[in-house]
Amino acid sequence: MTTLDLTGDVVDLTQTICDIPSVSGDEKALADAVENALRAYPHLEVLRDGDAVVARTSFGRDTRVVIAGHLDTVPVKDNLPVVVDGDVMRGRGTVDMKAGVAVALHLAATLTDPRYDLTFVFYDHEEVAAKLNGLGRLVRNHPEWLTGDFAILGEPSDGTVEGGCQGTMRVKITVPGVAAHSARSWRGSNAIHSAGAVLDVLRAYQPRQPIVDGLQYHEGLNAVKIEGGIAGNVIPDLCTVYVNHRFAPDRGVAEAEAHLREVFAGFEVEVVDAAPGARPGLDRPAAAEFVALVGREPQAKLGWTDVSRFAGLGVPAVNFGPGSPLMAHTDDEFVPIPEIRQALKVLKAWLTV
Amino acid sequence: MTTLDLTGDVVDLTQTICDIPSVSGDEKALADAVENALRAYPHLEVLRDGDAVVARTSFGRDTRVVIAGHLDTVPVKDNLPVVVDGDVMRGRGTVDMKAGVAVALHLAATLTDPRYDLTFVFYDHEEVAAKLNGLGRLVRNHPEWLTGDFAILGEPSDGTVEGGCQGTMRVKITVPGVAAHSARSWRGSNAIHSAGAVLDVLRAYQPRQPIVDGLQYHEGLNAVKIEGGIAGNVIPDLCTVYVNHRFAPDRGVAEAEAHLREVFAGFEVEVVDAAPGARPGLDRPAAAEFVALVGREPQAKLGWTDVSRFAGLGVPAVNFGPGSPLMAHTDDEFVPIPEIRQALKVLKAWLTV
Repeated sequence: MTTLDLTGDVVDLTQTICDIPSVSGDEKALADAVENALRAYPHLEVLRDGDAVVARTSFGRDTRVVIAGHLDTVPVKDNLPVVVDGDVMRGRGTVDMKAGVAVALHLAATLTDPRYDLTFVFYDHEEVAAKLNGLGRLVRNHPEWLTGDFAILGEPSDGTVEGGCQGTMRVKITVPGVAAHSARSWRGSNAIHSAGAVLDVLRAYQPRQPIVDGLQYHEGLNAVKIEGGIAGNVIPDLCTVYVNHRFAPDRGVAEAEAHLREVFAGFEVEVVDAAPGARPGLDRPAAAEFVALVGREPQAKLGWTDVSRFAGLGVPAVNFGPGSPLMAHTDDEFVPIPEIRQALKVLKAWLTV
Repeated sequence: MTTLDLTGDVVDLTQTICDIPSVSGDEKALADAVENALRAYPHLEVLRDGDAVVARTSFGRDTRVVIAGHLDTVPVKDNLPVVVDGDVMRGRGTVDMKAGVAVALHLAATLTDPRYDLTFVFYDHEEVAAKLNGLGRLVRNHPEWLTGDFAILGEPSDGTVEGGCQGTMRVKITVPGVAAHSARSWRGSNAIHSAGAVLDVLRAYQPRQPIVDGLQYHEGLNAVKIEGGIAGNVIPDLCTVYVNHRFAPDRGVAEAEAHLREVFAGFEVEVVDAAPGARPGLDRPAAAEFVALVGREPQAKLGWTDVSRFAGLGVPAVNFGPGSPLMAHTDDEFVPIPEIRQALKVLKAWLTV
């Protein structure tokens, strides 16, 4: 097992953990190394569930901050071991998100007298199907491990604070018709033509851009799939339109569903799946101080992320980590080294008495 | 080999040839019986290609009439041997179209001094893929066997004359977009939404109902397939709409294509397949006399049929045969016996000096 030096240079630590491959499903070697390293620190209680490792302090502070990151990466594409190239570190996992994990590990080891009680969460299976997600498993198995007043996910965010996330809902809209031979089309009713009315609604829709807890969100309503048709000479009796709605975190899943049923009144609407958004929670004192220290305008997170899992436990959460999210999953993934040091610096300043 | 009595009762002949199974691909036994029976008549020249049999007179008349019918049937469904039940004959092939074939065989054998020269065509593989069609094969291999001034296909037509047929064209309309994550849909361009403009055109389209050679046709323009979408969280960059156009026989394939390119101006339109229609040709003297003898208002044929293959050779063609086309291919297929006798009577009257 690789021994991790958590108190040394955070860039060296980033490189070391990047070079332990941990594609989703193969996180064990890295999880073992992380658990083993954290157990060396008596101020931390270390817990484990599968390949998720949790370490937490118990100083009796009034406020508890959760710092979380996933250990897994998307598949390696000839981009390991990582390469340090001037001011950047290149390779799989550098930006998504072992730099963020290294920052958290360093904080866990070195903050022996923090301003708030701290919980560090390192989890598996973030890059694959949601049902496998290690943070989701912890929510189901050990929600008490995740309690806190504010959570930071170390996903790359260009060094700014990305607050909350939008919710997402997919609905299936079924448009019926009456089949007929296309040589006598007037004897039938063309379901694809009728689905034009659904596309009319989508084309005319004006998405909201509400401000929630000080951040501006941007909703969306989009067809993501359409299918219809039986044969080249038959008037189709069915057309199905799948619509994805992204909704700001001032609305819950039930409100989003009611909204869609109103927008598509008269059509058969079935909810296929849905996930709630998360309010950014930047009005909480600890969060406001953190944002002030980062010194840059916080941004609304539009995509759905694991911060929503914390929101489901009543813990407001944000993304804050080194590197650009646009580099995630690319073959030439990299992280700017100064951003690793800057993230560590900001978090350390915030969390130190 | 079953010996066919072509000069006896046409209803008995219908029953005899129905009871020789001849599902598409298995027409040989029936084709052999037909060829053998026709060779007994010295006024007929008998030709064969595969399981298609052609018999023709050479009396030196000014006008030649072609009478054609297919020998094959759709698969048997416990409906052979046929049953005579009062005024109807029930079973596979009765209406589609061995009653029509029996009428033609009887005419071939008995019209030893006809008003016009006659060509009788009995062919295989009508009920399967167009490329296997026996009449199409004769057009390719021996177009001279099929020449004439007017053709009658003995398909069931409720005893009326169904004239010509409409053409058919399928086009693929490709609507592009720009992919983006559905959480940031405004960075992309939704191809499914854009395809709404194609459906607008289809919904607003007013099909022509032109009168051609005295018969009223009814065109159509219909989406028969639509597909688009990449994943549940991606703005689709492509939506494809397949449109089937049925056009009256006053327009050719090139005109139909030009029309569609005008209707869908601004969209990428690709012709997938097309088949020309056929003018009814009821203005020709022989045809007009025939229609007068039938004594019922002729109807436009809207679907595409093998009459178009004759039209391609410059031979106007109509459908005229006993029984209802709605009974074709049904498990309880039947033909009304009086309609067999009536079809024979009308044709015999028309073709006898």
